[in-house]
Amino acid sequence: MRIAIDAMGGDHAPEEIVRGAIEGARLASDATVLLVGDEKRIEPLLADRPANVEIRHASQVVAMDEDPARGLRGKPDSSIRVSLGLVKKGEADAVISAGNTGALVGGATVPLLGLGSLEGVKRPGIAVPVPTDDGICALMDAGANKSCKPIHLLQYAVMGSVYIRYLRPDLPNPRVALLNIGEERTKGNELVRETYEAFEKSGLNFVGNIEPHKMFGGKADVVVTDGFTGNLVLKTCEGTNQFLMKLLSGVLKSLPEAQKAVTGALEKLDFSEYGGAPLLGVRGVVIKAHGRSKARAIANAIRVTAEFVRGELNRHIVEGLKKLSWWGRFSDWFRKPADSLENP
Amino acid sequence: MRIAIDAMGGDHAPEEIVRGAIEGARLASDATVLLVGDEKRIEPLLADRPANVEIRHASQVVAMDEDPARGLRGKPDSSIRVSLGLVKKGEADAVISAGNTGALVGGATVPLLGLGSLEGVKRPGIAVPVPTDDGICALMDAGANKSCKPIHLLQYAVMGSVYIRYLRPDLPNPRVALLNIGEERTKGNELVRETYEAFEKSGLNFVGNIEPHKMFGGKADVVVTDGFTGNLVLKTCEGTNQFLMKLLSGVLKSLPEAQKAVTGALEKLDFSEYGGAPLLGVRGVVIKAHGRSKARAIANAIRVTAEFVRGELNRHIVEGLKKLSWWGRFSDWFRKPADSLENP
Repeated sequence: MRIAIDAMGGDHAPEEIVRGAIEGARLASDATVLLVGDEKRIEPLLADRPANVEIRHASQVVAMDEDPARGLRGKPDSSIRVSLGLVKKGEADAVISAGNTGALVGGATVPLLGLGSLEGVKRPGIAVPVPTDDGICALMDAGANKSCKPIHLLQYAVMGSVYIRYLRPDLPNPRVALLNIGEERTKGNELVRETYEAFEKSGLNFVGNIEPHKMFGGKADVVVTDGFTGNLVLKTCEGTNQFLMKLLSGVLKSLPEAQKAVTGALEKLDFSEYGGAPLLGVRGVVIKAHGRSKARAIANAIRVTAEFVRGELNRHIVEGLKKLSWWGRFSDWFRKPADSLENP
Repeated sequence: MRIAIDAMGGDHAPEEIVRGAIEGARLASDATVLLVGDEKRIEPLLADRPANVEIRHASQVVAMDEDPARGLRGKPDSSIRVSLGLVKKGEADAVISAGNTGALVGGATVPLLGLGSLEGVKRPGIAVPVPTDDGICALMDAGANKSCKPIHLLQYAVMGSVYIRYLRPDLPNPRVALLNIGEERTKGNELVRETYEAFEKSGLNFVGNIEPHKMFGGKADVVVTDGFTGNLVLKTCEGTNQFLMKLLSGVLKSLPEAQKAVTGALEKLDFSEYGGAPLLGVRGVVIKAHGRSKARAIANAIRVTAEFVRGELNRHIVEGLKKLSWWGRFSDWFRKPADSLENP
């Protein structure tokens, strides 16, 4: 198995990415880790490299804040495009990047140039691990697909259920919930109301609507929403978090013992434990690591990615989609015309 | 001026509501406060009442977790319906309730029975005060209108701008932003992309798109979104907050000094300071206080509500809508057909 790492992507690239790759290569000894990026910058960081780490040169970099479309088009030799190209050509099974999210997702999903969708998949989506009171759940889609139809959300439920079992093998039949503003089936906009019905008939372990504040209570294992809403919800978590931490770090400044306790507790929330957020539904394994990833997060991403490849994540997704009820698989045939999704 | 208070709504009703009403009646001495609810339960709590507090009997209560539509229809003598009825009949200028949100909003906006919309208003919406690093902003709509069109969001921008100046009279020209998943005008779903254009031509002080985590940074004074998204964003704030607090209260258990500092800091986040969330755009002033409101929150709600009535909030809203550019006021005439809001 070969895992390509975008060595130039992320706030701490290339130093922390390379360190993490070396650590990850030790954790996943059956994998060859391909560091993609400027060899002149990567080589000096590889003094103590295991045998299963190699370099693939890429002369360009899409910056973190660069317009993704422009970056992709204008930089054919960027580390992100070269990494994705390795997967497309069959020279790698997976790609991990802590770089520009839009460029990674766009590069993987754009028609013709991208990796292409798995058999039966309508729209790829991003699953994000979210910590809960008693473990973890997956929120999907976190931003790949801004305008969803019920069939897309149904497929996210299937893909999310397959994914979460790699993080929590103890779950025999993950509970799927629909993110909504209330629990009753009549709540929400037209999209979620129509999707509720599709979920009920899908054969999934559907436990109903869930409100965001209950998501953290561990009431569901897979929480499904459209990419616009999912992205806003995640950024709201992040914003609330930062806001509170700023407030607390001020008041705890003179209390070192308390500060230490708080820092320790926050490690529980550390997303780096879970190996990043996969873009599910494409041919190949594509992992978005957080932009702030340090070596440990990258090493964990390699470990988890190796499990996805080893455990044939994508085969399970394709099989999962086929297992959807007949109604679930073809529910978009029965959809009301698009304008019924609008305000009556 | 007469302000009706739903004495039976909220987690701490009627005791804290009545206490808050007495306190509020002292703060707003030009107002008469009408306590609406079961007089047998309210009367004993009124030992020390100021002259400007009266009781209006209502024999029923819509419970906090009751289905709003059923509660409204089945309980014509509920404290919420009687309170709204006082406004409708012109016997009160405003109503404040910490009770069932759906029943309050539904009762105020339902066709025929409700209060009716202000001149020019297409859809009423809920504005919620959100604390920021350096003050406060208004998020609107927080859940009244789940399926919005650009013209609704435009009107929310106007109504939110009028509202926030009652909380922050220092703002000459509030900055309006559109809640989105990125700052570029091309970001987001069709609704926000179309709305961006409408905002640019509206004559408002439009500062562009804002991401949720930047909302807390005080980059805008009015943050506009549809009611589905706004409600989810608020519930995500609440959920993240609760999640972190649970985590921290565990680790700080043995550090009383730190606990005290944290509690103090969190008071900064206390929404009760801002007098609740107004439903803007209806004939009359309707304030939703948080379900957990105690006396202080209710007293503040009365104080702020009195300012709205005294300061003719609704007249300013109607005038503000008239000041929208010609394009802004009639932008829905130029809208693409509804199905263009769907996935291409």
